Amino acid sequence: MFREKLTRIQATNSSRLCVGLDPDPTRLPKPSVSDDNQIFAFNKAIIDATHDLVCSYKLNFAFYEQCGIQGLEALRRTLEYIPDEIVVIADAKRGDIGNTAAAYARSIFESSDFDAVTVNPYMGRDSVRPFLEYANKMTFVLALTSNPGSSDFQRLKSDDLPLYVHVVRKSLSWTQKDNIGFVVGATHPMELEALRNEAADVPFLIPGIGSQGGDAQATMAANGSAPAIVNVSRGVLYAGVGPDFASDARAAALRYRQQIG
Amino acid sequence: MFREKLTRIQATNSSRLCVGLDPDPTRLPKPSVSDDNQIFAFNKAIIDATHDLVCSYKLNFAFYEQCGIQGLEALRRTLEYIPDEIVVIADAKRGDIGNTAAAYARSIFESSDFDAVTVNPYMGRDSVRPFLEYANKMTFVLALTSNPGSSDFQRLKSDDLPLYVHVVRKSLSWTQKDNIGFVVGATHPMELEALRNEAADVPFLIPGIGSQGGDAQATMAANGSAPAIVNVSRGVLYAGVGPDFASDARAAALRYRQQIG
Repeated sequence: MFREKLTRIQATNSSRLCVGLDPDPTRLPKPSVSDDNQIFAFNKAIIDATHDLVCSYKLNFAFYEQCGIQGLEALRRTLEYIPDEIVVIADAKRGDIGNTAAAYARSIFESSDFDAVTVNPYMGRDSVRPFLEYANKMTFVLALTSNPGSSDFQRLKSDDLPLYVHVVRKSLSWTQKDNIGFVVGATHPMELEALRNEAADVPFLIPGIGSQGGDAQATMAANGSAPAIVNVSRGVLYAGVGPDFASDARAAALRYRQQIG
Repeated sequence: MFREKLTRIQATNSSRLCVGLDPDPTRLPKPSVSDDNQIFAFNKAIIDATHDLVCSYKLNFAFYEQCGIQGLEALRRTLEYIPDEIVVIADAKRGDIGNTAAAYARSIFESSDFDAVTVNPYMGRDSVRPFLEYANKMTFVLALTSNPGSSDFQRLKSDDLPLYVHVVRKSLSWTQKDNIGFVVGATHPMELEALRNEAADVPFLIPGIGSQGGDAQATMAANGSAPAIVNVSRGVLYAGVGPDFASDARAAALRYRQQIG
């Protein structure tokens, strides 16, 4: 079960920090370990330096897909390399019609063995449910995202409630199991706090701290003690750009872990 | 320019039909041409049988991604094999924050040479704009999709207008160029007709005819003479399941081309 795995690793590593492994090929420092796959070598160095400080790694598929077969290979090897006890999230933001969503779900939960996935709710129930059929996995539905464009549609009000609240309410009705969570950006602490009235004990995946400007302390105060995974990507990966990038990443992860508390 | 390429091939092949190359590994008939990549062999047989009857092929990434590296290889070879004059759509339904969306856009328009992409608008402007920066390509934004779940959120009304109309109006403001279009399902002909008041001369990518139950005649009457690409996937791919599957697919494509008119 996802929830138990998360609770266990958060206790073991005293951490709600997730490091987003989003290797930008134009920003990779020279890895100390040589490997014919530079993306994997970079990820490996980051994992080696941070695995005792995190509860989770999140792999954003865009960064791997842009590198073609080499990227896919790096994704597979990274997934294999991450210690079993750590939660691994497929940040794929998928959303497609029923039979296609089922293909994506199989790809992420069977062909690969991710613990969790992010999905986009725009297409509604039949685009989300195939993921929810995996009782032991976690599906994080996008609610209020961390980026500037989140105000374009997610905040549109219908019956006095913003779209993202409709998303939370309706998608909670799609599963009776403990296998749904929501993506809520750290850039909106007030809304995050209010959303805890809708989904008190449901895990939130919280991006937006670090480069995107979200405040760790305000976010964690808003979330309280409810289950949360707080993601930092660039703030850890590119904390240093020289030969010491891995120990710089570790120092940054230590700092974020403490801020998140 | 996308628009010119589309006009040219639609005239040459007298066709607004797009065939969706969504090879389901569990439904592949034995291809007549042997190849170590069965997915590519299937696509090749379908392309050989239909390339003079279509204006476009649409590749739904889910079906390739679920097959791992073999799938990615099939995607690459299929893209190469499709004749240059035919429009090729990356049906990826991507939607992510700015830097990630930019990575996806590069992946689809540069690493690969697709003519068009589908994107999900839920995350707003910074998730769509990186695609719109490619002036010669076409970005189809999901508006009102063909699936049952389209009623969950896309029809929620804000200021008396459903979300999908907000999506159309707002995203039209994100580009001054002729490089935006919308996905509108054939399962909603009345709404499609009404949307032509918002976007009279903008290309619509129209899925939902065939297995999904959309009516070709009602759809085309609703669309009128505005630019449209009408997609059929399963209705062509699996028209036959025996050794004659390719000629069965051709017969189905001929029938759909005529119905679409």
